[in-house]
Amino acid sequence: MTKPHPFDEATRLFQSEPGVWSGASTEAYANMVGSFGGIASATLLNAVVSDERRIGHPVSLTVNFCAGVGEGGFDIRSTLHRTGKYTQHWSLELTQEEKLCSTATVVCGVRGEVFSHQPAVMPDVQPAEDCAPLPSMGFLNWVDRYTFRFVEGAMPGTNRAAGALASARTVAWVNDNPARPLDHLSLAALSDSFFLRLFHVRGNMEPMGSVTLTTHFLATPDELEEQGSKPLLGIADSTRFHANFHDQQIQLWGSNGQVLATGTQVAWYKQ
Amino acid sequence: MTKPHPFDEATRLFQSEPGVWSGASTEAYANMVGSFGGIASATLLNAVVSDERRIGHPVSLTVNFCAGVGEGGFDIRSTLHRTGKYTQHWSLELTQEEKLCSTATVVCGVRGEVFSHQPAVMPDVQPAEDCAPLPSMGFLNWVDRYTFRFVEGAMPGTNRAAGALASARTVAWVNDNPARPLDHLSLAALSDSFFLRLFHVRGNMEPMGSVTLTTHFLATPDELEEQGSKPLLGIADSTRFHANFHDQQIQLWGSNGQVLATGTQVAWYKQ
Repeated sequence: MTKPHPFDEATRLFQSEPGVWSGASTEAYANMVGSFGGIASATLLNAVVSDERRIGHPVSLTVNFCAGVGEGGFDIRSTLHRTGKYTQHWSLELTQEEKLCSTATVVCGVRGEVFSHQPAVMPDVQPAEDCAPLPSMGFLNWVDRYTFRFVEGAMPGTNRAAGALASARTVAWVNDNPARPLDHLSLAALSDSFFLRLFHVRGNMEPMGSVTLTTHFLATPDELEEQGSKPLLGIADSTRFHANFHDQQIQLWGSNGQVLATGTQVAWYKQ
Repeated sequence: MTKPHPFDEATRLFQSEPGVWSGASTEAYANMVGSFGGIASATLLNAVVSDERRIGHPVSLTVNFCAGVGEGGFDIRSTLHRTGKYTQHWSLELTQEEKLCSTATVVCGVRGEVFSHQPAVMPDVQPAEDCAPLPSMGFLNWVDRYTFRFVEGAMPGTNRAAGALASARTVAWVNDNPARPLDHLSLAALSDSFFLRLFHVRGNMEPMGSVTLTTHFLATPDELEEQGSKPLLGIADSTRFHANFHDQQIQLWGSNGQVLATGTQVAWYKQ
């Protein structure tokens, strides 16, 4: 029996009754405090994707991070609010020993072959194979679960002038490490795989964290299948850092030039 | 006694017990089917803003539109999940005669005078007073509750070549009509005041509707107060229309060049 991919291990859920699931944190995606938020997001989405009541495919996911998910087991409860002809609405809560860690809402949509048009154009950048992968940082497990190849706005150096601010924009190729065929769950996690923009701008680690994360899935399952385990091109940027909060917008592009997902988050910072 | 502004009338709530509110649709913000989604969003946010348990100010709002809000009364139930030192998490549901119309999550944040930086630069466009306001369409009440002054990507004309697609991008000055001092509630509604991008791209009215809407509030209350009733500069764009759904990103700029809010939504379309 092949050992499952760490991502599948980390997002695995067991259903005890309809809408009641349990899972457990894994060391492979450990963050500074608790688990990587992208794994919590993907696991919450898994409680919808794995539910036999689901129609269509994920279209939108919003996760609100109330508290970090620590070591050990956790529970997810989902509520199916409404199933229409075209869309389905869910709410979820992730708790650990009665403590609420995350709330989430998911919209699924029934997708067909209708009008298709993509005004956005993929940036013309160096191919992934020409970009050096970020070496392991050796202290954040979840970072080692991705291969980052920076095209623009690499990891902030520590040798910049004191107080000098860098660009908030990053363009990078990213994929699971070890490689894993793309699906909606890994796309949800990838949408949170960008380092917080404040870290890039100021270049130092200070207290900060994601507060709320929204991902819109623009790709259909056939496109995710076609993408397979090839690197995605990711773009992240921020418009404003002000009064303890900043926004962060992302795009994830497939290697065929299709927008697979777009998203936004708000991060908190202390000083 | 002065007659209240139609926006305040439309978003007014009465609390019967903590977290239980009632309101009523008003004709002033009627949409093709039910009320304008921006008003539902603002009213949901009002159930948090008006709650005496609230700390800080709204930082993020996600509203999922399950069904339109029709004429008559409606109820909102809020759940306060967690109050931390810096953030507070809420979930809400809007129902009409036991039918669930919307779910929402809100994050409030305590904002202080810390690091502030805005990488985004306001586009240099014609001032609002030099742009002609969009004449009343005369059939959608909510559209008449805003003064739109298009700078780029105006309302789609009907005289374009059959099948020709227009840009998804719009830049427009927008403010409440009649004028009203800006607050988080009107900012929430303004973030949904852009016509769906598909309408701009194809130029015809076909079955479509907002499915989920996320708004991030980057401005502090003093900035909203300073903005007052002056027009905001709005930018809306989409990356992709595919398989019945499209995304739509927005920015709302204050007249001092500050980003007041950014947001994203997913819209459904039939064909």
